[in-house]
Amino acid sequence: MTISDLADLLDQFANERDWRQYHTPKNLAMALAAEAGELLHLFEWVTPEESENPQEKLLCDASLEMADVLIYLVRLADIMGVDLLEAARRKIDMNANKYPAGVE
Amino acid sequence: MTISDLADLLDQFANERDWRQYHTPKNLAMALAAEAGELLHLFEWVTPEESENPQEKLLCDASLEMADVLIYLVRLADIMGVDLLEAARRKIDMNANKYPAGVE
Amino acid sequence: MTISDLADLLDQFANERDWRQYHTPKNLAMALAAEAGELLHLFEWVTPEESENPQEKLLCDASLEMADVLIYLVRLADIMGVDLLEAARRKIDMNANKYPAGVE
Amino acid sequence: MTISDLADLLDQFANERDWRQYHTPKNLAMALAAEAGELLHLFEWVTPEESENPQEKLLCDASLEMADVLIYLVRLADIMGVDLLEAARRKIDMNANKYPAGVE
Repeated sequence: MTISDLADLLDQFANERDWRQYHTPKNLAMALAAEAGELLHLFEWVTPEESENPQEKLLCDASLEMADVLIYLVRLADIMGVDLLEAARRKIDMNANKYPAGVE
Repeated sequence: MTISDLADLLDQFANERDWRQYHTPKNLAMALAAEAGELLHLFEWVTPEESENPQEKLLCDASLEMADVLIYLVRLADIMGVDLLEAARRKIDMNANKYPAGVE
Repeated sequence: MTISDLADLLDQFANERDWRQYHTPKNLAMALAAEAGELLHLFEWVTPEESENPQEKLLCDASLEMADVLIYLVRLADIMGVDLLEAARRKIDMNANKYPAGVE
Repeated sequence: MTISDLADLLDQFANERDWRQYHTPKNLAMALAAEAGELLHLFEWVTPEESENPQEKLLCDASLEMADVLIYLVRLADIMGVDLLEAARRKIDMNANKYPAGVE
C-alpha cells in the first residue's frame, strides 16, 4: 500500500458513511492534533530512555495512535490537494540549508 | 519517493548532524504534537468553509506544516520499528467494524 | 478557591501519591498538551455555531477537560515558580501594543 | 488579579477589537491547543532533568506560553459559562476516588 492507496481507501470509507461533509481542512486539522495528543498521553510519564525500550503494550498502543495521525494527515492532504511526500522533500531541503551538516 | 525512502533520508539527515541522541520516541512524540499545533494555528480563526477554499498563502503554509508532521511521524515510526501503512490498514479494519457502512 | 489554593492542593495530592518525581516541567507540558487534545476531540466535528450552543453532555465533558488543562497548567507553573496571572497580565500588555484597539 | 478579573479583561480586549465573532468554543479550543503546542516546542529536546533547572531564556519563554494557554482557557470557560476553579475541584475529587492515596 502507498500513501496514495491509503488516500483512496479513506475517501471510499468516508463516502460510504456520508462523512465527507465533516472533513473540512479545519476539522481534520483538529482531529489530527487530537490524535497527536493521544500519542503524547502514552509517553507523558515514561522517561526518554524507557521510551527507547518500550514494553509490548506501549509499542502496540503507540502504533495505533501513529496510524490515526497518519490517517488524518493523509485525508487532510488529499482534501487540500497536497502531495505529502513532495512537501516533505521540500521541507528537508529547507532544513538542510538552515542546519548545514558538520556545523555546531 | 516512498515512506521508506523518507525514513532513510531522515536517518541520514539526523546522523550527519549527530541528532540521533535527541530522537527518542518521547521527544519525537512531543515534536510531532508541536507541529500539529502549528497546523492548528493556521486554521483557528478561519471558518470550516473558508478552510475548504484556502487562499494561496494558507495552502502553502499548511503544506509545510503537514510536511513537518509527516517528517516526525515517519521518524518516530522508524525509530520504534513500526510499519505506518500496515498500522493504518489495521486501524481502518478496526474502524470498519466499529462504524459499519450504511448504519446511522 | 484561588489559583494559589489549587496549586497547594495539587502539591499535597502529588506528595501523598509519591508523584512528585514524575512532575518535571517536560512531563507536565506533555500532560497539559494531551489534555488540550482531549478538549479538541470534543469539538472536532461540531460547527462553530453548534459549539456556541452546546448540548448538556458537551458542556459537561468540556468543563472536565478544561479542569484537566487548568490542573496541569497550575501544577507546571507552581513547579517552575511562575506567577500565572502576572504572566497573563504581562502578555495582555504585549498584545495591546501588538494589536492596538480601533485599528484594522 | 483573579481568574474572574482576567476573564473581564479579556472580554473587554476582544470587544474593543471586534473579536467576539471569532471566539466560538470550537475556535478557542483550537487556539488553546495550538498554544499548548508552542509550550511543547520549548521542552521537546531538553531532558526532564534539564527542564527542572531551566535556563533563564527557557523559563521566560515558558512563562509567556503558559500565559497564552491561561488566556485562551479563561476566555473559553467564560464564553461557555464554566467556573474553572469549581470544575478543577470536582475533577480532583474524582481523581482522589480513582487513585486513593497510599495505594500502589
